[in-house]
Amino acid sequence: MQLLEFYVDDIIKRALLEDINYIDVASDYLLDDKQCSAYFIAKAEGVLCGIDVAMRVFEMLDPTFKVSEKLCDGAKVKKGDIICRFSGNVRQLLKGERTALNLIQHMSGIATATNALVRQCEGTKATVAETRKTLPGLRVLQKYAVVCGGGKNHRFNLSDCAMLKDNHIDAYGSITGAVNALRKKVGHTVKIEVETRNLDEVKEAVAVGAEIIMLDNMSCDQMKQAVDYIDGRAVTEASGNMGERSVHEVALTGVDIISFGSITHSVKAFDISMRVDK
Amino acid sequence: MQLLEFYVDDIIKRALLEDINYIDVASDYLLDDKQCSAYFIAKAEGVLCGIDVAMRVFEMLDPTFKVSEKLCDGAKVKKGDIICRFSGNVRQLLKGERTALNLIQHMSGIATATNALVRQCEGTKATVAETRKTLPGLRVLQKYAVVCGGGKNHRFNLSDCAMLKDNHIDAYGSITGAVNALRKKVGHTVKIEVETRNLDEVKEAVAVGAEIIMLDNMSCDQMKQAVDYIDGRAVTEASGNMGERSVHEVALTGVDIISFGSITHSVKAFDISMRVDK
Amino acid sequence: MQLLEFYVDDIIKRALLEDINYIDVASDYLLDDKQCSAYFIAKAEGVLCGIDVAMRVFEMLDPTFKVSEKLCDGAKVKKGDIICRFSGNVRQLLKGERTALNLIQHMSGIATATNALVRQCEGTKATVAETRKTLPGLRVLQKYAVVCGGGKNHRFNLSDCAMLKDNHIDAYGSITGAVNALRKKVGHTVKIEVETRNLDEVKEAVAVGAEIIMLDNMSCDQMKQAVDYIDGRAVTEASGNMGERSVHEVALTGVDIISFGSITHSVKAFDISMRVDK
Amino acid sequence: MQLLEFYVDDIIKRALLEDINYIDVASDYLLDDKQCSAYFIAKAEGVLCGIDVAMRVFEMLDPTFKVSEKLCDGAKVKKGDIICRFSGNVRQLLKGERTALNLIQHMSGIATATNALVRQCEGTKATVAETRKTLPGLRVLQKYAVVCGGGKNHRFNLSDCAMLKDNHIDAYGSITGAVNALRKKVGHTVKIEVETRNLDEVKEAVAVGAEIIMLDNMSCDQMKQAVDYIDGRAVTEASGNMGERSVHEVALTGVDIISFGSITHSVKAFDISMRVDK
Amino acid sequence: MQLLEFYVDDIIKRALLEDINYIDVASDYLLDDKQCSAYFIAKAEGVLCGIDVAMRVFEMLDPTFKVSEKLCDGAKVKKGDIICRFSGNVRQLLKGERTALNLIQHMSGIATATNALVRQCEGTKATVAETRKTLPGLRVLQKYAVVCGGGKNHRFNLSDCAMLKDNHIDAYGSITGAVNALRKKVGHTVKIEVETRNLDEVKEAVAVGAEIIMLDNMSCDQMKQAVDYIDGRAVTEASGNMGERSVHEVALTGVDIISFGSITHSVKAFDISMRVDK
Amino acid sequence: MQLLEFYVDDIIKRALLEDINYIDVASDYLLDDKQCSAYFIAKAEGVLCGIDVAMRVFEMLDPTFKVSEKLCDGAKVKKGDIICRFSGNVRQLLKGERTALNLIQHMSGIATATNALVRQCEGTKATVAETRKTLPGLRVLQKYAVVCGGGKNHRFNLSDCAMLKDNHIDAYGSITGAVNALRKKVGHTVKIEVETRNLDEVKEAVAVGAEIIMLDNMSCDQMKQAVDYIDGRAVTEASGNMGERSVHEVALTGVDIISFGSITHSVKAFDISMRVDK
Repeated sequence: MQLLEFYVDDIIKRALLEDINYIDVASDYLLDDKQCSAYFIAKAEGVLCGIDVAMRVFEMLDPTFKVSEKLCDGAKVKKGDIICRFSGNVRQLLKGERTALNLIQHMSGIATATNALVRQCEGTKATVAETRKTLPGLRVLQKYAVVCGGGKNHRFNLSDCAMLKDNHIDAYGSITGAVNALRKKVGHTVKIEVETRNLDEVKEAVAVGAEIIMLDNMSCDQMKQAVDYIDGRAVTEASGNMGERSVHEVALTGVDIISFGSITHSVKAFDISMRVDK
Repeated sequence: MQLLEFYVDDIIKRALLEDINYIDVASDYLLDDKQCSAYFIAKAEGVLCGIDVAMRVFEMLDPTFKVSEKLCDGAKVKKGDIICRFSGNVRQLLKGERTALNLIQHMSGIATATNALVRQCEGTKATVAETRKTLPGLRVLQKYAVVCGGGKNHRFNLSDCAMLKDNHIDAYGSITGAVNALRKKVGHTVKIEVETRNLDEVKEAVAVGAEIIMLDNMSCDQMKQAVDYIDGRAVTEASGNMGERSVHEVALTGVDIISFGSITHSVKAFDISMRVDK
Repeated sequence: MQLLEFYVDDIIKRALLEDINYIDVASDYLLDDKQCSAYFIAKAEGVLCGIDVAMRVFEMLDPTFKVSEKLCDGAKVKKGDIICRFSGNVRQLLKGERTALNLIQHMSGIATATNALVRQCEGTKATVAETRKTLPGLRVLQKYAVVCGGGKNHRFNLSDCAMLKDNHIDAYGSITGAVNALRKKVGHTVKIEVETRNLDEVKEAVAVGAEIIMLDNMSCDQMKQAVDYIDGRAVTEASGNMGERSVHEVALTGVDIISFGSITHSVKAFDISMRVDK
Repeated sequence: MQLLEFYVDDIIKRALLEDINYIDVASDYLLDDKQCSAYFIAKAEGVLCGIDVAMRVFEMLDPTFKVSEKLCDGAKVKKGDIICRFSGNVRQLLKGERTALNLIQHMSGIATATNALVRQCEGTKATVAETRKTLPGLRVLQKYAVVCGGGKNHRFNLSDCAMLKDNHIDAYGSITGAVNALRKKVGHTVKIEVETRNLDEVKEAVAVGAEIIMLDNMSCDQMKQAVDYIDGRAVTEASGNMGERSVHEVALTGVDIISFGSITHSVKAFDISMRVDK
Repeated sequence: MQLLEFYVDDIIKRALLEDINYIDVASDYLLDDKQCSAYFIAKAEGVLCGIDVAMRVFEMLDPTFKVSEKLCDGAKVKKGDIICRFSGNVRQLLKGERTALNLIQHMSGIATATNALVRQCEGTKATVAETRKTLPGLRVLQKYAVVCGGGKNHRFNLSDCAMLKDNHIDAYGSITGAVNALRKKVGHTVKIEVETRNLDEVKEAVAVGAEIIMLDNMSCDQMKQAVDYIDGRAVTEASGNMGERSVHEVALTGVDIISFGSITHSVKAFDISMRVDK
Repeated sequence: MQLLEFYVDDIIKRALLEDINYIDVASDYLLDDKQCSAYFIAKAEGVLCGIDVAMRVFEMLDPTFKVSEKLCDGAKVKKGDIICRFSGNVRQLLKGERTALNLIQHMSGIATATNALVRQCEGTKATVAETRKTLPGLRVLQKYAVVCGGGKNHRFNLSDCAMLKDNHIDAYGSITGAVNALRKKVGHTVKIEVETRNLDEVKEAVAVGAEIIMLDNMSCDQMKQAVDYIDGRAVTEASGNMGERSVHEVALTGVDIISFGSITHSVKAFDISMRVDK
């Protein structure tokens, strides 16, 4: 797994403890220690993510668990496709089913939504990114799902990229003032992004050398103008309720990045079922 | 707070570490230790949940933080309503803004969606419940949000209620066999719920004394028949892709509970903004 | 293991860190990395519990550890019986000995005490249950030991069953008031238990449909009367210093459950020794 | 508190999560946020321990919690004595009641049992000590309770004192060989204790300069002989099923320490009730 | 504190548990609960860091702890300067002394060493940065200390800046190949740094648009040549056993950043004493 | 490993999370899942420590990781010596490289510095010990490294040995008063060490039976006098800025222990490189 396994394990443990607490009164009291085989099946069309994470759930519950075949994260599926086949102790498989599905369904939901947006950008230079509007404790999984869906990651946290907003700029009277003040302090690996609302601000941001310029809540015309003005001197990012606009139209303005809060804060679970072979 | 504060604190810490890691390079390097006041404002109509949780984020970051007024969880708001007003160190408020909003938006999204379903049940005896399809690490917050939206909680985990599904029933050849086997082992505080797919199974479940009978993926006619047959001898629960049906129609069948996976696995964030007073 | 292995691991880690801290100055400094075999032997008659937990202690310390034979949790032993045979690195076995024994002795103590009470109920319909009077951090292990001893588990925690006591009832003026108020809010999977001290209260509890009725500190005559009156309309639980009474006599009143705080709050360790083969 | 508060907090958090999980369905759904006063009352005669720990439980649940009077750990009480009086939110007091009592009852049980043994040693030079037979996760609280009962603590763990048993001695052929080998490696702050079973072994242990000599499972006559022979050249510790012997008689042999596994592995809870003022 | 207090608390808790474990047998057994005042005094000349962290140690141990005056992190002191004055319970102050000093001495050692290097760069455009050669579990504190000493932070971790070394470059046959491959995948906020060993590599890195170019183990002449060639088209970083060279000479080559592993991997504690007022 | 593996794992996890956070953008995005072999090579002369710890880093990242040969902790190496050879997934090896090196370099730095001091004591009876001046969270590793370097460990924490300093002695008016007061309370396994500054104090400490006497900041002449006076009646420990004196001269005074804060608070990393075979 590309993700740190022991980090993922902590998320899974938390989830299993929430869901099992003590024992599974139905499975632990009723079922014998029998081996069985089972599989995950897609109930819709989309892009998968979280297969290894889901399999890890069973691995943590059942030392006899084995995967016999599986698709890879990022795989495109349609309704009815088999995602993975595996075998193990029937009690443990039933115990882990819900947690495994909760994880893969959430992650695949993000990958699928991201991919739909990515496809709307095809033929343009725009790429899709998420924001910091992630669910508490799940950012790593969510970021990873965005990549599996074909997007690219925005900054991970407040330490690794500086985004200057109203409050920062106001404290220094101008974009120029704030960027220059920050340059004196911030490490050389940290890019500075400036939020702009009009062409004047864009010009100031370019002049002071901002590495990334966010075009916030601008019309497509404004964005196009801004992109033309910037002309490669900074990365351009379109942002602001992008979920409610024509993504393709935004992409055609020539921006580099279009960022969407919705792909992580308003995830629609991707429907997957587990079936035990009789 | 009704929720255990130190439990909530752990969720918040995890979220803040994800979002801040080391420092907020923009706010920590650019802003002075000034006090300011700010407020949360609703950007849509809905039911709030997570206000105390959100305020706790700032409290954990800023010893000078104070709330001057706030609505209570469960409050109904419309677009433009002020949710809470507070003051504190500007650096800490900006540092905590995203985490606080991520939490309250997610929880209010659940409360709002739940409430919409609850309203469709008005005039019937049906109540709305969530399922175990929750997001890893967030079950407590999600369950609480369902209650704030006017729903009631289903079982918390696999230890506190036994739901007998295909696999359990098949292992004993019949609903009767499985329920009786379980009764011999399970504690007296644990209710037994049986999944049924047709009237014959309903009848068997009633006969063996199941406390809750799930009517799984039945048509409204079937459900009505089942409810009439059961006639109060067990709690009835309608389940199975309820999100895609007319909830009011289901409620009219006379079922006690309608359970929805979607209100926790496919949450649409409720839009709230933080504004700093100038 | 029926218990979640990683949950048990956390208890074991905590115990090993308490007991070892840094190194075992005797074994680490004096003994070579030699393999040896060893066994656990019962020093008294009773019911075993915690064998897998104890073996897990060694497994976590020693990658070469192997169990060659073992009894199962719930097995009855008499003095001198071999409980399990295993082999591993002598340093690691001696390091883990105390922690492994502390766990199995405590758990077997509970199973043994539970079983003694269970045997006093033989020939009646009464079963034995523990209470919430458990030792901090050990509830899961203690609940599990009660089951291994032949008892059944009472509620796990305050979320999964509502027990109405004086303070709750007083707040609503009557059992009827309190139960009805709770019904409006509590989820459908949660049973309501009412504490009663006399037949009038029992009658009120039955009338309002309490699922479980606790007969608190009643005489056997009173309990018999109550059980007769209830006549299967609710589960009956005898409680209140049961440890100091004739359990068989209580069982003969016809109650369903007799609950004992002592089996978890006042555990007598079951004596087990580890012996290393020379 | 002499104990590290944040360490104790972790034990309490674990206990509260076990006992509450999500919410207290009875108290949270039925009771208002009213203040009330309450007290703990002793139901038996004994020595208290864990009062601060128990009060800390409520403090962690309830910011309005206040203690108005309390006895100190180590205080002797008789049946009916008030232990502490306090006030707070009624919902939070009821939520924390069980956890607080579980802790104070366990700790007071240890202090009381220790004290009974200490009193049997009065008039002799013997003091009472616990062993490493403690309950997982509770060693700190248990050690502290022994001191409150008038005992003294044995080693805390395997790092801070070396006890040479059969297996260590066999590896070097003799007590002399093992002690000398250990001296070459172990730090100068670590005392070496040697288990002996007869006078010859005692003599060898004295000769090689063991700082502590355990007289394991010896008769009182043997112990007296050993103590006379040792004559202050080493600390003497009587051990081996001391719980089943006349402690006073053992104490009269002149040993310095008598150690008891039972005071920590087989604790009888000391009976304490919480009463809410009406 | 600019650092997350609860994050720092975790480091402190770990340290206090290491150092105290159960109780401080000297202070807890010998000293009364008396208030006293005390202060920290510098025993050498240097730059302070970790004052708030050290004060937090006492705050966590002692609710009566109060700071009456203190210098700020980054303050320059000479031998004999008072760093802070505070008061509290004498037992708790002595218990926390070592942990508080261990933290502030380590952090001030880093700040002091950093500052010495910073001063050697005065009059040039070079700034000093640390590397990823930090001590496990202490990176946040160490990074912060570098800033207090006048340095700037290099990347925090492997997620927030991509540094291409031999192995990455070899996999693609050329710097150009590797940078272009990475650009297709990596997020727009992540800068790409390329390690170069000669002017040819520098040229290739500039051509492909690397944002940062590391001049690895070059002579000053080589570095000067490289800087001249790059001419502001990328940030330049001198690296490679910088601790053993004339920093001023390196700085004069015109590089932007000089990075030192030694300031975090080989820290000399800055000498500070705590004195209790009599 | 002599150290508790799961304890070491926690340190490693913390370190890896600091260093990787989410993914390694260079290795995860650029490198394939290829196997490769690599080795650690010493860049200086010294004593190794932490080899197993370093190998464990890779083991935790890479299930295919295998060590083919390695030296043991405590081994002496010279520049150019191969320390260990291993193979695994190239992405995981590069991901873990820095963390593994940070650990082994720090631990080997301590072992090397300790050993240099040990060698200066050769031909005398003195041994080298560390102090409590350790780095937060790393005490276990640091203590272990001292032993690997040929030193012996001082007390682990404040619970396992009592060191009486000014403040404790002042509270009782005299060394005699303080030691006697402590004896009444402290467990029999805890040695008492007394700090002395002159011969009078030494005499008092001997008279009251202190097990260890620290000669604090004395001249070599004073120490010799003290050692002669004590004449084996207590362990003697020379302390106080030992790092700045001729250790051999101190050792010749006849003291048993010379303790050095510097070997743990001011560690110089031992230079080791990882090289991947092409």
